[in-house]
Amino acid sequence: MTRIIMHGCNGAMGQVISDIVRKDENAEIVAGIDIVDNRENGYPVFTDIDSCDVEADVIIDFCSPKAIDKLLAYCKKTGTPVVVCTTGLSEKQIEAVKETGKEVAVFKSANMSLGITILSKLLKEAAQVLADDFDIEIVERHHNQKLDAPSGTALMLADSINEALNNEYEYVYDRSKVREKRKKKDIGLSAVRGGTIVGEHEVIFAGTDEVVEFKHTAYSKAIFAKGAVAAAKFLKGKGAGMYDMTDVVE
Amino acid sequence: MTRIIMHGCNGAMGQVISDIVRKDENAEIVAGIDIVDNRENGYPVFTDIDSCDVEADVIIDFCSPKAIDKLLAYCKKTGTPVVVCTTGLSEKQIEAVKETGKEVAVFKSANMSLGITILSKLLKEAAQVLADDFDIEIVERHHNQKLDAPSGTALMLADSINEALNNEYEYVYDRSKVREKRKKKDIGLSAVRGGTIVGEHEVIFAGTDEVVEFKHTAYSKAIFAKGAVAAAKFLKGKGAGMYDMTDVVE
Amino acid sequence: MTRIIMHGCNGAMGQVISDIVRKDENAEIVAGIDIVDNRENGYPVFTDIDSCDVEADVIIDFCSPKAIDKLLAYCKKTGTPVVVCTTGLSEKQIEAVKETGKEVAVFKSANMSLGITILSKLLKEAAQVLADDFDIEIVERHHNQKLDAPSGTALMLADSINEALNNEYEYVYDRSKVREKRKKKDIGLSAVRGGTIVGEHEVIFAGTDEVVEFKHTAYSKAIFAKGAVAAAKFLKGKGAGMYDMTDVVE
Amino acid sequence: MTRIIMHGCNGAMGQVISDIVRKDENAEIVAGIDIVDNRENGYPVFTDIDSCDVEADVIIDFCSPKAIDKLLAYCKKTGTPVVVCTTGLSEKQIEAVKETGKEVAVFKSANMSLGITILSKLLKEAAQVLADDFDIEIVERHHNQKLDAPSGTALMLADSINEALNNEYEYVYDRSKVREKRKKKDIGLSAVRGGTIVGEHEVIFAGTDEVVEFKHTAYSKAIFAKGAVAAAKFLKGKGAGMYDMTDVVE
Repeated sequence: MTRIIMHGCNGAMGQVISDIVRKDENAEIVAGIDIVDNRENGYPVFTDIDSCDVEADVIIDFCSPKAIDKLLAYCKKTGTPVVVCTTGLSEKQIEAVKETGKEVAVFKSANMSLGITILSKLLKEAAQVLADDFDIEIVERHHNQKLDAPSGTALMLADSINEALNNEYEYVYDRSKVREKRKKKDIGLSAVRGGTIVGEHEVIFAGTDEVVEFKHTAYSKAIFAKGAVAAAKFLKGKGAGMYDMTDVVE
Repeated sequence: MTRIIMHGCNGAMGQVISDIVRKDENAEIVAGIDIVDNRENGYPVFTDIDSCDVEADVIIDFCSPKAIDKLLAYCKKTGTPVVVCTTGLSEKQIEAVKETGKEVAVFKSANMSLGITILSKLLKEAAQVLADDFDIEIVERHHNQKLDAPSGTALMLADSINEALNNEYEYVYDRSKVREKRKKKDIGLSAVRGGTIVGEHEVIFAGTDEVVEFKHTAYSKAIFAKGAVAAAKFLKGKGAGMYDMTDVVE
Repeated sequence: MTRIIMHGCNGAMGQVISDIVRKDENAEIVAGIDIVDNRENGYPVFTDIDSCDVEADVIIDFCSPKAIDKLLAYCKKTGTPVVVCTTGLSEKQIEAVKETGKEVAVFKSANMSLGITILSKLLKEAAQVLADDFDIEIVERHHNQKLDAPSGTALMLADSINEALNNEYEYVYDRSKVREKRKKKDIGLSAVRGGTIVGEHEVIFAGTDEVVEFKHTAYSKAIFAKGAVAAAKFLKGKGAGMYDMTDVVE
Repeated sequence: MTRIIMHGCNGAMGQVISDIVRKDENAEIVAGIDIVDNRENGYPVFTDIDSCDVEADVIIDFCSPKAIDKLLAYCKKTGTPVVVCTTGLSEKQIEAVKETGKEVAVFKSANMSLGITILSKLLKEAAQVLADDFDIEIVERHHNQKLDAPSGTALMLADSINEALNNEYEYVYDRSKVREKRKKKDIGLSAVRGGTIVGEHEVIFAGTDEVVEFKHTAYSKAIFAKGAVAAAKFLKGKGAGMYDMTDVVE
C-alpha cells in the first residue's frame, strides 16, 4: 500500500488523481493540501504542507509554482519522496527541484503518460535500424487553445530519436517558404490545431514503397493523472535521486 | 468506342495510359505521337502530330510544353477535342489553351484523380455545415523528391473549402514561430515529406469532442492515367469549351 | 431562447446537458425531473413530470424506459415537443412514441452526433458516385465493455450507403471462415474493441490504386448531449411529426 | 560485391529484383534461370540451374514449387547459399528446405519486408510492457483478390505478440455472433478487403484514455524484392543453418 499526500488536491488534476486512487487497492490518499476546501474527498485536507500532521510514503504535486519552495523544503526535512507535476516553474525553481533530488527521491518527467514513455523507448530502437533507409517525420494534433507548436511531447519524441542517431538530425517546421527537396537528415515536425483534441502524436518512418508509423492518442487528461499515480507507487522507498517516467517503465 | 491519339505515348504516363486503354473495351488508342519510338505499343507511332494521318475522337496529351503549340493548332484545325495533362506550361501557353477552348472541347484539370474530385465536392458541402463549430486543417504527405509544399492538390482542396465559406479563411503553413492560439478562420496546411509516398491528403474538421476526417490515398500514378482516360471518354463529341474533372464526375 | 425541461436531470447525461445549456445563451433549463435530488442544478427539480408546474418549449428525455409512458401522456396533454434520447425502449413503447408524433413534435434519432449525421449524408453521395469502381468497408472501434458488434452507428452508416445503392449490398462480418474473394456487392463491417475508446467509425472506399476514407471520432459522450440540445432548439415551435438528426442538419 | 543467381528471373518478382540489383553498387546478378527467355536482362539466362555454368555467392529463388527440388540439390552439391522466396511449397518440400539448411545457409521467412520484421520485434517489447493495461487488436487491409483472411502477416504479428505473452492469448475473428464483452486475453483480428490495396497492418494497444498504434503500409510488392536482396547480401559467406528476416535486422 502506497500512502500518498495529494498536494493541490482540489484542483482539476488533484480531483482526477483522487478518483483514480479511490479505485486502486494498492494506493491511498492519506491527506490533501489545498488553500480551498470545497470538496468531499474522504481524506483530511490541510491548507498548507507544513500544517499537515499525516505522514506518507510519497507526495504527488499538481499545485501552483507558488507553493513549490515550501513543498521542497518539507520533502528535504521529512525525507518524503515527491512526484513534481506542477508546470510553469521558473529556472530557479527547476534548479531547486534538482537540488532536492540530491537528498530525497524526486520524480520529474516532461511527459507523464505511460504510453508516450514506451513509445519514446521503441522509437529509439526503430530509428537505429530504420534511419538509413527511411525518412522521419512527426505530426501532432492538439486543441485550438494551445499556444505553443510543436508540442513539448513532439519535441521530446524528436529528441529521443535524434539522440539515438548521434544528434545528427535537424528539425524542420515549415516547408512552404522554400522550393527544395527534403534533406536526408531532416526530421519534419507538423502541428495540427483544432477543436478540443487532447493530444495525438504520430511518428512516420517513410521508406521506399513502405511506411512504418507509430501513433499515440490521448483521450483525456486522466492519463497524466494515471501516470502520476504509477510514479508515486514506483517512488515509494526509493533513495535520493532524480527519476522520470523511463525509470517507471523499465 | 472512343478512339484516342496518345500524344507523348512513350513517356512514363503515356505507357501507363496505353496499358489501361488496352484493358478497356470502350476505348482504343489508334495512334501515338513521340519523338522516340522504342516501344512495342501495338499502334502506329508518329514523330509529330502533323505527320499523323489517323483520325481520332480525342487526343490525350502527356507530353512536353515544347510540343503544346503545334498540338493546339492541330486541334483547332481538325476540330479534335484534347485532354491537356502536360504540366509546366508557361503563362502564354495556358492562355493559348484557353483560346483553343473557344473553338474546340478542351479538358484541363488541376488534379486528374476521380477520388480527389469527389472529395473536393463533398468537402464543400461538409464545410458549409460544419465550419461554425469545427476547425479545418489539411495534412498532406508526399515523397522526398517533391520540391513544392504544400502540394497543388492540398491547395486546391483548401480553395474548394474556402470558396464554400465566402473566401473568409486564411491559410497557415507554420505555427512554430508564434506563441498564440489558432484563429477561428485559419485553415492550417501541413506538409509531410518522406520515402516514395505517392500522395496522401487528409482534411480534418475538429470540433468539441468530435473530429470528422476525409482522406485520399494514391497508391500509384496510374490513378492520374485512369482519370485521363475517363476524361477522354467524357470529351468525345463535346462542343467547344473548357472542361475539368468536376464535369466528368457530375 | 429555448426553455427546456430536463427529464432525468440528475443522471450522467442529464448533468452533461445541464452543463452545456448553462453556457448556451439561446437555451435555458427551466426545470428538471428526477426521482433523486442530490445535485445543485440551479433550477427546480420535480420527482415526476406530472408534479412539474413550470412550462417549457421542449422536453429533453434522458431518463429510464419506466418513465416514458407518463412522459408521452404529458406531452400529448400539454402539446410540449419532446426529444426522446432514452434507449432500451420496448417495441410497445417505440410504437407509443410514434403515436405521440401524430399529435405533437417528437424527435428520435439512432445517433445524436452532428458529425455522424453529416457523415451519413455525405456517404450517400459518395456511394452513388464511387460504388462502381470502389469497394466499401466499415471499421468501427469501441471500448471493451460494449456488448454488441458491430455498433448501431456502423450499421446505420452501412444502411445509409446501401439505401443509396438500391439496397443491393450484403453485409459481411467475418472473412476468416471461407477462402474466397470479396464479392463486389459486399460491405465488410469490422469491430475493434479495446480500452475506453468512446467511438470511432471509418468508412473506406477502396479502388484501383486509390482509397477514399471518411472517419468520425468521438472523444466523449458530451457530443450526444450537444446533439440533444441542438435537437431541442430545432424542435421549439415545430408542429406534430417525427423528426430526427437529419432534419436538424438540413 | 554479392554475386547473385536469380532463379525465376523472368517472372514478375524476378524482374523487380533485377531492377533493384541494377541500381545496387554492392550486388550483381551474374546469371538468371528461367524456362522462358523473353527479356533483355543484361545477364545470361539458363533454362535450368544444372545447365548454369556461372558461379555465385548466393541464389535468390522466386520461381515455382516444381523447380525447388533440383535447386536444393544444386545448393547442397555446390555449397551455394539460397534465399527461398517461392511460396506454395508442399509439406515434404518444406522439410527438404530444412534438411538443406543442415548443409548450407538457407534463408526462409514468412515475411520479406524489412519494415514488418522490425515492427514484429518492437511489438514483442511493447506487448510485454503494455499488455496488463492495454487491449490488443489487429486490423489488416488487402486487395479484393486475396483469398485468405486474416493475412499471413497479421497472424505472424499476432503470434509474435502472443509469444511475448506466454501464448496466453486467443484470437477472435468475429464479434457479431455473440453479445458479450471482450475478454482480457483476446487478440481481435479484423480483415478489410478492397480495391488494389497492397497490404496494411495496424496493431492497436487500447488502454484507459490512451491508445498506442503501430502501422505498416506497403505501397508495392517491390518491398518484398528489396527484402530478398537484403537477405542475399546477408547470406553471402554464412555457414550452414536456417536464417530469416530477423537475423538480417539484428
